[in-house]
Order: sequence, then C-alpha cells, then structure tokens
Amino acid sequence: MDFEPSDRAKALLERVRAFMDEHVYPNEREAEEALDREVDADTPFPRILVELREKARSEGLWNLALPDPEVGSGLSNLDYGVVSEEIGRATLVAPYCFNVQPPDSGNMEILGEHATPAQRERWLEPLLDGDIRSCYSMTEPDTAGSDPTGLACAAVLDGGDWVINGKKWWTTNALGAQVAIVMAVTDPDGPKHARATMILVPTDTKGFTMVRPLSNMGHTAGPGHWEIHYEDCRVPADLSTLGGRGAGFKISQDRLGPGRIHHCMRLIGVAERALELMCERAQSREMFGTALAERQFIQDFIATSRTEIDQARLVTWHAAWKLDQVGNRAAREELSVTKLAVPTMALNVVDRAIQVFGGAGVSDDTPLAGMYRYNRMLRIGDGADEVHKQVIARMELAKVGKRATASATPVAS
Amino acid sequence: MDFEPSDRAKALLERVRAFMDEHVYPNEREAEEALDREVDADTPFPRILVELREKARSEGLWNLALPDPEVGSGLSNLDYGVVSEEIGRATLVAPYCFNVQPPDSGNMEILGEHATPAQRERWLEPLLDGDIRSCYSMTEPDTAGSDPTGLACAAVLDGGDWVINGKKWWTTNALGAQVAIVMAVTDPDGPKHARATMILVPTDTKGFTMVRPLSNMGHTAGPGHWEIHYEDCRVPADLSTLGGRGAGFKISQDRLGPGRIHHCMRLIGVAERALELMCERAQSREMFGTALAERQFIQDFIATSRTEIDQARLVTWHAAWKLDQVGNRAAREELSVTKLAVPTMALNVVDRAIQVFGGAGVSDDTPLAGMYRYNRMLRIGDGADEVHKQVIARMELAKVGKRATASATPVAS
Amino acid sequence: MDFEPSDRAKALLERVRAFMDEHVYPNEREAEEALDREVDADTPFPRILVELREKARSEGLWNLALPDPEVGSGLSNLDYGVVSEEIGRATLVAPYCFNVQPPDSGNMEILGEHATPAQRERWLEPLLDGDIRSCYSMTEPDTAGSDPTGLACAAVLDGGDWVINGKKWWTTNALGAQVAIVMAVTDPDGPKHARATMILVPTDTKGFTMVRPLSNMGHTAGPGHWEIHYEDCRVPADLSTLGGRGAGFKISQDRLGPGRIHHCMRLIGVAERALELMCERAQSREMFGTALAERQFIQDFIATSRTEIDQARLVTWHAAWKLDQVGNRAAREELSVTKLAVPTMALNVVDRAIQVFGGAGVSDDTPLAGMYRYNRMLRIGDGADEVHKQVIARMELAKVGKRATASATPVAS
Amino acid sequence: MDFEPSDRAKALLERVRAFMDEHVYPNEREAEEALDREVDADTPFPRILVELREKARSEGLWNLALPDPEVGSGLSNLDYGVVSEEIGRATLVAPYCFNVQPPDSGNMEILGEHATPAQRERWLEPLLDGDIRSCYSMTEPDTAGSDPTGLACAAVLDGGDWVINGKKWWTTNALGAQVAIVMAVTDPDGPKHARATMILVPTDTKGFTMVRPLSNMGHTAGPGHWEIHYEDCRVPADLSTLGGRGAGFKISQDRLGPGRIHHCMRLIGVAERALELMCERAQSREMFGTALAERQFIQDFIATSRTEIDQARLVTWHAAWKLDQVGNRAAREELSVTKLAVPTMALNVVDRAIQVFGGAGVSDDTPLAGMYRYNRMLRIGDGADEVHKQVIARMELAKVGKRATASATPVAS
Repeated sequence: MDFEPSDRAKALLERVRAFMDEHVYPNEREAEEALDREVDADTPFPRILVELREKARSEGLWNLALPDPEVGSGLSNLDYGVVSEEIGRATLVAPYCFNVQPPDSGNMEILGEHATPAQRERWLEPLLDGDIRSCYSMTEPDTAGSDPTGLACAAVLDGGDWVINGKKWWTTNALGAQVAIVMAVTDPDGPKHARATMILVPTDTKGFTMVRPLSNMGHTAGPGHWEIHYEDCRVPADLSTLGGRGAGFKISQDRLGPGRIHHCMRLIGVAERALELMCERAQSREMFGTALAERQFIQDFIATSRTEIDQARLVTWHAAWKLDQVGNRAAREELSVTKLAVPTMALNVVDRAIQVFGGAGVSDDTPLAGMYRYNRMLRIGDGADEVHKQVIARMELAKVGKRATASATPVAS
Repeated sequence: MDFEPSDRAKALLERVRAFMDEHVYPNEREAEEALDREVDADTPFPRILVELREKARSEGLWNLALPDPEVGSGLSNLDYGVVSEEIGRATLVAPYCFNVQPPDSGNMEILGEHATPAQRERWLEPLLDGDIRSCYSMTEPDTAGSDPTGLACAAVLDGGDWVINGKKWWTTNALGAQVAIVMAVTDPDGPKHARATMILVPTDTKGFTMVRPLSNMGHTAGPGHWEIHYEDCRVPADLSTLGGRGAGFKISQDRLGPGRIHHCMRLIGVAERALELMCERAQSREMFGTALAERQFIQDFIATSRTEIDQARLVTWHAAWKLDQVGNRAAREELSVTKLAVPTMALNVVDRAIQVFGGAGVSDDTPLAGMYRYNRMLRIGDGADEVHKQVIARMELAKVGKRATASATPVAS
Repeated sequence: MDFEPSDRAKALLERVRAFMDEHVYPNEREAEEALDREVDADTPFPRILVELREKARSEGLWNLALPDPEVGSGLSNLDYGVVSEEIGRATLVAPYCFNVQPPDSGNMEILGEHATPAQRERWLEPLLDGDIRSCYSMTEPDTAGSDPTGLACAAVLDGGDWVINGKKWWTTNALGAQVAIVMAVTDPDGPKHARATMILVPTDTKGFTMVRPLSNMGHTAGPGHWEIHYEDCRVPADLSTLGGRGAGFKISQDRLGPGRIHHCMRLIGVAERALELMCERAQSREMFGTALAERQFIQDFIATSRTEIDQARLVTWHAAWKLDQVGNRAAREELSVTKLAVPTMALNVVDRAIQVFGGAGVSDDTPLAGMYRYNRMLRIGDGADEVHKQVIARMELAKVGKRATASATPVAS
Repeated sequence: MDFEPSDRAKALLERVRAFMDEHVYPNEREAEEALDREVDADTPFPRILVELREKARSEGLWNLALPDPEVGSGLSNLDYGVVSEEIGRATLVAPYCFNVQPPDSGNMEILGEHATPAQRERWLEPLLDGDIRSCYSMTEPDTAGSDPTGLACAAVLDGGDWVINGKKWWTTNALGAQVAIVMAVTDPDGPKHARATMILVPTDTKGFTMVRPLSNMGHTAGPGHWEIHYEDCRVPADLSTLGGRGAGFKISQDRLGPGRIHHCMRLIGVAERALELMCERAQSREMFGTALAERQFIQDFIATSRTEIDQARLVTWHAAWKLDQVGNRAAREELSVTKLAVPTMALNVVDRAIQVFGGAGVSDDTPLAGMYRYNRMLRIGDGADEVHKQVIARMELAKVGKRATASATPVAS
C-alpha cells in the first residue's frame, strides 16, 4: 500500500496547478460570465475560453481525461483523479480549458471505442481538436432516469434511416453543440438490455428541436441543460448508429463508471476550494473584535469539512484504483460508494462555507453559491443517491454467508 | 393548554385558503415571472399582482400582519401565525397579495409606532394603501451583520440636514421602492446602543445609488436584494428622522422579534407545500413498475419531514404565543429557538422534495428550487444560526443554580 | 390556542417537584442501587422505595397516571404529561415513588377497564395499593414484535383451563412481580385481530419459568427484563381471561397509545435533566484556564439540545391533547410522530451530556450512562422507529389529492 | 499509489483470520464472561484466555503490535493496521489472544524505548512473555484530561525515593496488573512540558490503593477501569523513573500517536463485524412475510454503514502510512482526522445494527451492546472529539495564505 501519487501524476499536477494559478483563477469570474452570455448555437466557446484552451493545448495540457494514449493523455483513472481534483477547484470554467468538460469527455471516450472511421472523422477528430462540442441525450421527462430499460424515446428504421420520436431533457451543454448522442429504443421486444441504440444526430437536423433550457437551481444561461424534442427526426442509419444496433445500454453503462468518478474527483476539488475560502474568510473577518477563526462554531465547520473531504477523497481514489485494476463491473460497489459519498459531502462543505461568508456566501461575490447550484444535481444524475444505496445494500447482503464467524446465537434458546 | 386556533384565526384562515386556491395558485408561476420581468424603479408591482392585490383588498384580506387594529388586522402574533403559514405556501407571490410582503410589513409596523404625522402621511398611508413599496437598509458589506453596534455607514448633521455616507447591501426589494429606511451612525461616541439613527430616504434622493442587485443563490431579477451606496446623500433631519436621534438600535430590535417569527411562519408553509408535493410525486411517479410511494427510501423522507415540520410549527406557535403574552424581550430565547430550528428544517424538507422529483426538482418546473434559493439566506439574516445558538446557550447557562437537584457527586471522592 | 398548563396540572406539578427535591433526588442513587440489589421474587420493592412510596401516598401523590378518578388521579393525558416530565427526571427511581412505574401503570389501566370483579379484587386492588407488582408478557424472541398478529405463544382450552406454551422475552420487571399478563394465541384460525387473548398468570404457577434476565445495554440486575418460558402452564380460564377471548389484540392496542406517550413524557424529563447537568458541568469545569461554558463547542451542544427538547415536548403535549380530544385511533399519526421524535432526541441530548462530562459521563457518577442504557430500547419497543415512519408515511400519502393546489405542471410538455 | 496491502500483511492477515475463525469466535462469549468473572489481583488472565494465548504464541501470532522486530512483529503501522482490523472484530477478547491488548501494547512500546536494563528485565520481559499485565495511570478525576500540563498528582524526591500523592481514574485493566505507569508532576515550576515524570509503581506498593472500578456505560466487571489513589506511595527513584525526570509529557505524546490509531484500526473491525451481523439478520429475519433485507429502511442502514466504514478505513490506513513515513508529529493532522472520524462512525454502525436486531440488539445475545458500551469512551479518551476538532481547525487555518488562488473579491467595492 502506498498513498503517494505516481511521478507522472505529480508532474502533471504541478503543471496543471501552475496553469490554474496563472491563467484560470485570474480569469475565472470573467469566463463564467462569458459562458453565460456568449454561447449560442454557432458559438461553442466564448472568446476568453478559446484563448485559455489554446494556451492549455499549446502546453500539452489537453484531453487529459482520455485513457487512450493515442488520442488523449493515457492517464489511468487514478492518475487522472489526482489532476482532476485540481481542475475541479474552478469547476464551472477549468474543465473547458483542458477539454475535459462533460459531456464531451465521456462522449469522446465512447466515440474512441465505438465510432466507425467515418464517425471518427466527422465527430471525434473535431472534438479532440476542441473545435466543436457535443451533447448526450439520455434522460427523459416522463420516464424514470434510474431505469434505463424503461425509455420512451424510440427510433424506427425507414429506408436506411432512423426516424426518431420522443422527448429528452437534462441534455447538458446542448446549446452550441453540433452533435447529440441520443439513446433511443429500437427493439422494444428485444431482450431488456438490448432494446436501445445510440444514435448520432447533428443538431441542425430537421425534427431536432431545442425546446427550452431547464433552470438548474435557478440558472438557465450558457450551454445549459436543455429539453429537446425529436419529431420525425431522420438520420441515415449507417452513418449514425454508434457501436451497433442494440448496444445502447451497454455503451451507456461503460460510460457511467469513469463518468461518475470524474464528477466525484472534481467535487473533491470543489470542496477543497470551499474549505480554503472558509479558512481565508475566518482569518480575515472580525466580529465583536475577534476573528471568526477564533470561534469554535467556525472551527467546527473547518474540522468537520477537512475530516469529510479526506475520507471522500480516499474513497474516490480507491474506486479509481479498483477501476484501473479490475474494470467497471468488478468495481461497481466501490463506484457506488463513491457516488453516494462525495456529492453530499461536497454540498455540505459548500453550505458551511456559505454560512461562514454570510451575505457574500449566498451572492455570486464568491464562487460558493455557483458551486452549490451547479452540483446539486449530482445527487440525482448518473444514479440518484437512493439507487446507489440499493446497489451497495444488495452487494453487501450477497456477501453474507461467505464467512460464518459473525453469527450470534441466543444463549438460552 | 389548548392547541385549537382561535375562532377568529380559523375563520380568517378559511378565507385566505379559499383565496389562495381560487386566485393565487393558478397564477403563481405567472406572477413569479412577472415579478422578475416587470418590476422597475417606477413599477413597484407587476400588473398581475396589482390585480390580485385589489381582489384581496376588496375581500378585506389586507395588511393582515399589522397588530394595530386601526391600520391592520389587529391579529395577535399567534393568530397571524396560523394564517401566515398558509400565505407562506406560495412564498414568493402570496405575501404581495395580502400586502404582508417583507420588508414592507415590518416597515409599516415601525412607522405605525414611530412616525410623525408628516411621515405617516407621506409614507405610511400609501404603504397601507399598497400604492408604494419601501426597503430597509441595514446590513453592510464590510461590517458583521450580527454586530449592529459596529456599523460603518454614518450620517452627520449639516444645517438641518442629515448627510449620509456609507455602503449597504442586502437591501431587499429596493428596486421599485420609493423610500429606504436607513440605519446610520449619528453619535459614534454615544452609549453603544444609542449611536445609530433610522433615517427615511426617498430613493430618488441625490447620492442614493443603487449599485447592483446581489445574486441570491443565483437569482438577481425582480425587486431583488441590492447593494446601495450613500454618497453625501442629504435629507432634511426633521422630516427624515424616525423615532428620534439615537433610537435606531432600539427600533431595529423591536422590529426583529415579530420579523423573525413571521419568516418562520411562512417557512412552515413552505415546508408543508414541499411535503405535499413530495407525496403527490410519490403517488404518481412509477419506477421499475411500482409507485415511488411504495419505497421506504421515500417513506423515510415523508415521515421524517412530517415529524420535523410538526415540531417546528409548534415551537413557532409557542414563541408567537409567548411574544403575545410577555413581549419581545422576555420571549427572546423562544424566538431564538424558533429562528434556529425552522429555516434549517424547511431547507431540509425542500431538499428531500427536490430529491424525490429528480430533474424536475432542481428545475423550475416545480416551485422547489425557488423555495431553496429564496430561503437559504434565512439561516444568515436576522441573526445567523450561530448567533442564535449563542443566545440560547447563554440563557440556558444562566438558569443553572436556580435549582439544586441535578448535581452529580462522584461517589468516592 | 394556549400553552399554559391547567391550574390543576400546575398545582400538582408544584407538589411533585417539591417531593422530588425533598425526597427523590437526595435518595436517587441509593434507591437505584437498592433496586439492583434488593429486589427478588418475594421483594417487589426495596426498603428505601417502600418508604418513599409511603410518603408519596400519604401526600396524595399516588397513581397519578390513571385517568379513572375512582382509582387514580383522573388526570387527562395532557395534564399528566406536565407532571410526568418531572417524574421522568429521575427516570429509574421516581416512577416507583408515585406508583406510575411501567408496566404496572399500563396494566392497572387495562385491568381497570376489563377486569372482572374477582380479577379486580385479586390483582387490581393490591396493585393500586402498591402492595404487589405485575409484568406484561408480549414480545417473543422468535417472532417480530412489530407484527402482533404473528405471535407464536399459544394457549388451548383443556377442561376449564388455559394451557399455555411458548416463549416470551423482554418481560419488564418480571422479578418480584406476582402476576403476568400474557398475550397468547387462542384462535389461530380466527380473524387476524381476534386470534389472541390476554391471560392473567400468577408467577408462581407451575410451568411459568423465569429463564434469565436479559442484559439491557449491559444491565441485568434489579426487576429486569426477563425471558420467560411457558411450558404446559395451566390456569383456570374463567379467572384468568382478561376482557374476553380474542380481545388480546384490541386491549394491547388500547394500552399502546397512552403507554407510548407516557414513555415520551418521561423522556422529556430525562433530556431536561441531562441538559441541566450539561450546563452545570460547563459552568463548573475549567480547561486551559476557562470554563467549558465559554467554549462554543459546548454552547453548540447546549443550544442544539434546548432547541430539540422544546420541539419534542410540544409535539408530545400536542399528541396528548389530541389523544384527550379524539382518542387513540384518531390521534395515531400524532402518536407516531411523538414516538419517532422523542426517544432519539433524548438519547442525543444524553449523549452530548456524556461528552461534556468525559470520563464522569460514561461512569455511573452521573445518571447519564444509566439514562442511555435504560432508554435505548425505546427506539425499539412499542413500535420501532421504522414502524412509526411507515405509519406516518402512509397517513401523509393518504392525504394527497384532498387538496389540488400543490400540483406542479411542467411548462413545456 | 497502490491500495494493495503488502505481501507480509496479507500473509499475516490470513493466519490471524484462520486463528480467529478456529479459536476466537467459537470461544468469544465464554472468554468475555471469563474475563468478567475470573480476573482478580492475582489472576491477570482467565484460564480460557491463557490457553488461547498459548496457542497464538505457539503459532508465532504474538506481540503483533510492536514495531521493534527484536521484541515484536516489527510491522509498520500500516501493515499492523490491516491485521489489527481483523483482531478488532472480537474487540473485547481477541487482542488478549495476540498480546496486543491495551494498555499493555502501548506500555511495552514505551518500555522498549525508554526502560533501563533493570526495568526491562523486571517489567518488559514478563510483559512480552505474556506472564503479567500492566496499567497506565494518567487521567485524573479533578483535572481536564485534555490538558496534560495541568495534572495534580505529584511526586517528590525523598531520600532516593519518589513519594507520590494524588488521584487517578480510568486506569484501564488495573485489576490483575502487577505494575502501573504513573504520570506525576515532579517539577511544578519547570518548563510546561517538562514538569511531569513517568514512574513505574508495583501495584502491591504501600499507598497504592485501588479505590473502585468505574462503571463504563454500566459495565464494571473484569480488569476494568479503576480509580486509584496514591497516598505517600513510595518507590525507589532509580528503579522507577522511566526515560528520565521530566520526560513524562514527551513519552505520553509518543505513546499517543500509534495508540490512537490502534484504537481506530480495531474500531474498523468492530464496525465491519456489526455490518456483517446486520446483513445476516436482515437475510434471516422475516417480518410480515418478507425478509428485512427486502426493506429499504434496512438497505439504507447497510449502504450508509458500508459507505462510512470504507471512508473511515482509508483515512485510518492513510494516517498509519503517514505515521510510518514522517512520524508522529508530522502526521498530527491525519491522526486527529482519524481519531475524530472513526469512533463516531463505529458507534453509529453499531447503533444501526442494534436497531436491526431489536430486542436481541440491546441484549448481550449479540456482541453489539458490548461493542457500544466498550467503545463509547473512545470519543472521550486520547483526546476528546472536540480537542481533535481544534487541532484540525488550527492546522487548516495555518495553511491559509500559502496559496493565493481562492480569494473572492466582491465585484463592486
């Protein structure tokens, strides 16, 4: 056992940290506002981010999330975790700088594995180059997101085309995206996990309607989270089917493991940042003549936050390590433990920091309120907390009986 | 002891409830959006609210919060509590309908008690009539809100005028208000609690600058919460001093007691509404073939919420009753207990409801996210949780010794 | 609405408080130890308690829990609640002083309602006089206590006798009791709620075996909680059947309502005592030169405890009031809310007090550890927390639809 | 980074696990009861434990906690952690089997480092051989345990003897110990951290009085936790001074680091065992016709427990690793994080298991209640939770300023 990050991770971390210090934090707020104001259907990235991305790319800090060394960094999940936490500290802005913003990073990963040469050329290459953005159209307003076998959006073959009909929402970063990866039922009578297919749909296709941006805890601007309706939306099947008919569920599961953990890695960074802010405020703010830092109410917030963060980070690293060692499926319980633990931890730490800042905490003069509203959905998306609890409980219950030592026999009966 | 509301409260509650059902809920979302879009410096109320207010006034459902029967309902705090919970269910909209929106209700109360005849005529009458709105300029960006004796904003007498200089923020509903009640230091060397004076400042006075609306958990539109700078802002002292020079602290304390409890009463309504929504969703939403209502994770949310709400309501009613019986000062611990208990409870219930609704919960398709962002500040304003904890602890510690029964003597020493 | 206790309750409270101060607290620890050491099959009460009981009885402070004025105080549940909290402050000892110790108080109540004249004479009279004790044999080691229709212990008629076979445990205060009220299945094929009968069994009956005292969080001494086996235990049916064949379930339900709330009333007293001890300790103990009371960690414990206690007390009083107004069945949700809220609250307050006392807290030099171990089972008995959550959730869910105002309609679908 | 335990740890773990399965669990309850009944001043270990210890020693599973390979296992803290968790599963009994029971393991460690040859021969050798037991007399009833510079117990030199006077309590395992290591003030006017000396006192010395066993959450039997009075207790200074006059504070601090983490390692085992029991019960117990395992209330307990345990284990391992890498002092924050996180976690998991078992959970038919009462003090001893919070908060606050990236500048001021 060894808790020292690899030399590679440490070296990369140092470079990312320097980049964050020099380029990201000083521009953070401006970039956030630019994202809100400048993105539109033809503008995937605001000008300030285009520049930051170019700088990062020129320094080789690019596509860091991709495990395939041919197209990305080739980092293990564990090594990426160390770096990703740093990026997560400026969670609304920094992922764009290094081209690791969701959902593009996950989309690039599944395209890397499943795209045909034509699909690679049309979509993957420009994504890797950072010229376009993509979105991922999975969740539906009228069916339970936790039950991916119960989707309603469907596609039927007509001639050589898929004709797609249905409603999706929470399609993240749809504004400014050139392509959507849509999960649609194609074989409703097939085996449960082979009913759906992933289909690549250019966002200017007829019948692809961006209905409205959803408010995310009050925030609607920028690339957003959209409701999208597919009405007789027609795309050529050969060019558009990703990974084969019926492979949708499998690909979505493959995508989920690293995706979940990437979110959690960033959230560790969010929490660290919030704790750092909390400590700064406690040092600098006086009340009744003494610094907040002298008050045990505040010390309690700080100590509790540190204790929660350290535990959450280690469980995230451990899950990443397990994912690297034995893969998605065998690491399922560890992934669920991480996904259950980290978002709630991060929201709690952010909430404490808001409380320490008072009026400045609920305002956007600190990044805290933004951290809260941007991340609340992570207790819902990619498996709600309750779903992960069920996964964990089932796996624990299945272990019973493997060892006979725990039994408790009443003495007298 | 008797937990039955008074006949008067029950009769009024019935009328308010009928009004809410007929007029408020059906227009709730539209009114919310109108508040965001239509309010400006010359438009205190959007058109739809003007109409709803006229309806309510014509039915005698007007100025319900005011304990002075000459100008308001004359309800006790306890009776008003029963009614106020109902109003709080549509917390962003309904208070406007009955002219009980903060900060006007509190402002009308202190004007009722302290205004000169000229001040009454110029400000109180149109407020009571619902023709104008007011704001309350107390909290400062650079001094601790919990320490009202440490204010920086100051006014000096020059000729017969107050000349005010300083910064205020979190001045709620400033956009569209015609008058601000400003707390300014006027006697910096006076006794600690006689240093500040409340001054009435028309918002079109030179030197009164509305700098920016503060984002409140991401929300900036509508009447808002503003940062306001006073730069050589000059008003005639005789027309503008409220309640006498040096009375600022005392008036602000008088205002706080009922103000805190009114917030809490509305929050009970918020929580009840969130629980009701949660139950409706649990009944109507299916996952893997069974209603959410069948799942114990959800039942846990529901039962925990009901248990927390009932306790919080009773402690609020109890504090209101104590306030009615013995007044602000003697009910101080009960008020702090209420202020500590209720906002956290309400935010927790709302958060559970958000979780039950999933994507719809974080969006504005339900009122839940709005309830969260609008109310988070109530753990900060009017005394942060930590301040109330200190008040309660001190009062409990002061009780020790009054009874000698609890002592624990080590046996062997 | 009115939160003032009745004159009767206040007057009685004053007398009980004086008795506690003069007689109970000074003898509390000695009486506790005497209970552990002196009780045996022939000694229902230790000498010191016999004396305290005589004193209380001579002052008319006797059988306070019984609502029937002919045999007891005739207090309403609400009035008794006010008094019972006081008694609960010395929870292991004081209930014996006033002859309100469980399970005798509950047993006297059902005997008062259902006993035949012969049963009254043989069992109820000496119980009311405080000459004997009784126990209540309901819970079984091998069936779920939360499902009273699934009992295994059975009685069959043979001649005019009930012949009882089965195992019971957690039969509280069995050591020193002269009679057990046993719940046995008598009509296994009858309607679900008419299968069981309550049978009075003298504890010296052949076939009634006291197998062992169960450890209760480590405590086994004194009247205890016993495992009892019934092996061909034979009693005459006419003298022993309580309230008629098949009435067992109904009587047990009648007993539960007030029983649950009596436990909670006492627990409020437990929590108040723990808070009082916490404050005394905080005032008197120094660390690094300042009193613990100056530390916000401790202030947090105190303020949180006060806030939780006040809420829990009010919800208990409210349930008692509802019980008085509309009876057991209609107050079911309020009773479940109370039973869910109060024991956890009390254990949390006691746990904080233990923490403030440190080593003295976990020892028996304070009553705190005893409060913890004696009361932990109240989250399990009389309906585990989880059972009450289910009751509450079902009742909340059933309310949905009665009012149509809460509905949330997605805007765009 | 690598989460795989070392080959050495894994191999040893396998042997310890086999020993636990074959010898410890089958005798666990009997050994527990023997500890309670058979230990006295002349009997350090009950017969059944003597036999188990011989077996373990003959298999080389002996003195596993000692990092000095000459006398013990020579395991790193991290490797020992892996093994210690397993031993902690039978926390009241198993440590004795491997001669790692506190306080002997810590005492052997400081004796190993500081004893003179004569002290080694007289005390360390027989401790290593498992022939005697020792105790550690530090905490005092009248001074705050968290402030080791404020001790009252004092020793003065008289001739060549230390003459000790003072009171100690919570001297663990004093009954049956042959020697006590006493911390006494010897230089009250010396520098703060050089005032106290550790003195070895044979327990049969005149003036060494074992006053009473303290109840530990209701438990007083067995080796116990004792109050000890020193009255003119005289020992020869040359034979009795450990590590030099004035070295007491330093030695106690050296002892604390590993000691704290050893407690936490065992507590992880406690929690794992409780979770295993919870799952077994959930699988085997039916209620209303379905297994508890099907109920989400129970699944919630299980999933939450797994999530908490995994986080706590990793933070413990991480602290052990840091301790191995950089030593006690530099790992201080990690040790405090661990000590803050683990005991509360373990008590919570045990409490949930108690709830799942119901009546059997609070009884001693399962090891759960024992786990609770034995371990509650670990939130108090070796630094109360609140002390560790302060340590962590101070270290976090000290980090502020080292990095300038987090600052939040209000926009408009």
